[in-house]
Amino acid sequence: MKKEAVILLNMGGPNNLEEVEVFLKNMFADKNILTMKSALLRKFVGSMIVFTRTESSQEIYRELGGKSPIVGHTKKLVAKLQERFGENVIVDFVMRYTPPFACEVVEKLNEADVDKIYLIPLYPQYSTTTTKSSLEDFEACYHDKGGNALLVEKKYFFENKKYNRAIIERIKESIGGDDYSDFDIIFSAHGLPKKIVDAGDVYEKHINRHVAILEEMMLREKMEFHAVHLAYQSKVGRMEWLTPSLEDKLADVKSQGVIIFPIAFTIDNSETDFELDVEYREIAQEMGFKEYRVAKCPNDSELFVDALQEIYEKMK
Amino acid sequence: MKKEAVILLNMGGPNNLEEVEVFLKNMFADKNILTMKSALLRKFVGSMIVFTRTESSQEIYRELGGKSPIVGHTKKLVAKLQERFGENVIVDFVMRYTPPFACEVVEKLNEADVDKIYLIPLYPQYSTTTTKSSLEDFEACYHDKGGNALLVEKKYFFENKKYNRAIIERIKESIGGDDYSDFDIIFSAHGLPKKIVDAGDVYEKHINRHVAILEEMMLREKMEFHAVHLAYQSKVGRMEWLTPSLEDKLADVKSQGVIIFPIAFTIDNSETDFELDVEYREIAQEMGFKEYRVAKCPNDSELFVDALQEIYEKMK
Repeated sequence: MKKEAVILLNMGGPNNLEEVEVFLKNMFADKNILTMKSALLRKFVGSMIVFTRTESSQEIYRELGGKSPIVGHTKKLVAKLQERFGENVIVDFVMRYTPPFACEVVEKLNEADVDKIYLIPLYPQYSTTTTKSSLEDFEACYHDKGGNALLVEKKYFFENKKYNRAIIERIKESIGGDDYSDFDIIFSAHGLPKKIVDAGDVYEKHINRHVAILEEMMLREKMEFHAVHLAYQSKVGRMEWLTPSLEDKLADVKSQGVIIFPIAFTIDNSETDFELDVEYREIAQEMGFKEYRVAKCPNDSELFVDALQEIYEKMK
Repeated sequence: MKKEAVILLNMGGPNNLEEVEVFLKNMFADKNILTMKSALLRKFVGSMIVFTRTESSQEIYRELGGKSPIVGHTKKLVAKLQERFGENVIVDFVMRYTPPFACEVVEKLNEADVDKIYLIPLYPQYSTTTTKSSLEDFEACYHDKGGNALLVEKKYFFENKKYNRAIIERIKESIGGDDYSDFDIIFSAHGLPKKIVDAGDVYEKHINRHVAILEEMMLREKMEFHAVHLAYQSKVGRMEWLTPSLEDKLADVKSQGVIIFPIAFTIDNSETDFELDVEYREIAQEMGFKEYRVAKCPNDSELFVDALQEIYEKMK
């Protein structure tokens, strides 16, 4: 029987403090992130950003125990999928900005003489800045290394019912035994410069649809929050980004408690564990929220494993 | 119930002799066809090609009855799919280089308030020059017109069993009651400049895999041709293209008869009905072949309709 591989793709995160600079350098060398046409200008702007951000970023990862949680969670997820799929399917992962990079993994796959490679970017919604960047990066390495396998690509999976069940369970965990009506819920999506959306990126559309699906599921399950919101986090720089920002949304919400679900991430990382759980928590507390809770990402939950298994089966 | 649409995408072909120039102009304005970075250079080279080719192209379409057969076949295929899918699914088609263009069809879809659009390029194998060009063209129009539907895209379907059954039936029709061993079969794929493949286009890989699949199916069905070949047709210009060319392959084949199956097309067009069936026929006759037969494309065959129905169901 011919061997197959299932490769999970994600942005990555530093595995130690030295990798913080690698992470930033690779991110701001990505033409899907800094979209100017001139490679020289990108290099210049990228270097400036890396120079000004490395130390403050290291500070963040120091607070998270010296590394991003993303790789640890991903390894657990990969192990669970590997157990499900058995030995004829290689399960592995590739990060866009930190090791393991696509080219290393491609070499392993070529050695194993894999016939088909199922690429599943772990971004529920499609964006040029995430999904496309990861897929193109893998394709380019694969072409360079001269592999002969067929690449089968998943572009988004925010509609997958099992995946959305995994999210609903995380929200339920977060509410615990408390009363839904005492809380607002904010689906917090990673922001994006508006000019990228204006150029045709479908991310905002996918986010809107995803929130609508989850809202309907919560209604059906009688998870009757005081209100349901969408906001965008992580804006940097002076360009116009998608709105409303999470700060503005928090200022608007008039309730005692709020639950934040990070809708654009499947795996916890510094933007959930630090930005949402530490930085925005301080903002929320200053605003007087009595309860501020950040739901966990699906990570390696059984329901997310179910979802990925179904996604793979349907790609065949 | 929310409305869905299934849109078949293809390159198109002139509906009358006046459209020959439109067809050529649009084809050579496509940055996926003429891949130089400079838009100005593309415009210049494109104009030269259109200028030198319009008359000879018109001559070809005059011999085909004044138009390409592609639109007629496509309309029949669309009608059959529409009958299968019922009134909640709009079935339509978009051509890349001749009417109906993506933007007209998008306007109709927006008026009908369609919620999901399933885009199925009618290219069995993926290529930047065909599949990607058609999908990007539709996406760009859709973004410009401000539609809100979710676009669901198929990238290739050469592995689809029902589709390959449709091909096998066409080959059987072509052989009729004759003896397979008296014939060679050449799968003739549209050629591609080698530099496009070198830049990462997976077309050649997909073609190789497709031929291998069909070869296995023919073996299983005891369709024992004298030999099975792959060749590339339609080379123009002085650049290096994929090899072997169909001329060279015909010169190599040492048998009495040959069957040509146009493996990269699903619908007959001037490159099958004229180039293969008229021009290469003359070459083959000069070479002394006693039998030279061009199998029909799947066109609107029931098996191809079955295949497209299955492809749509699996995209959901």
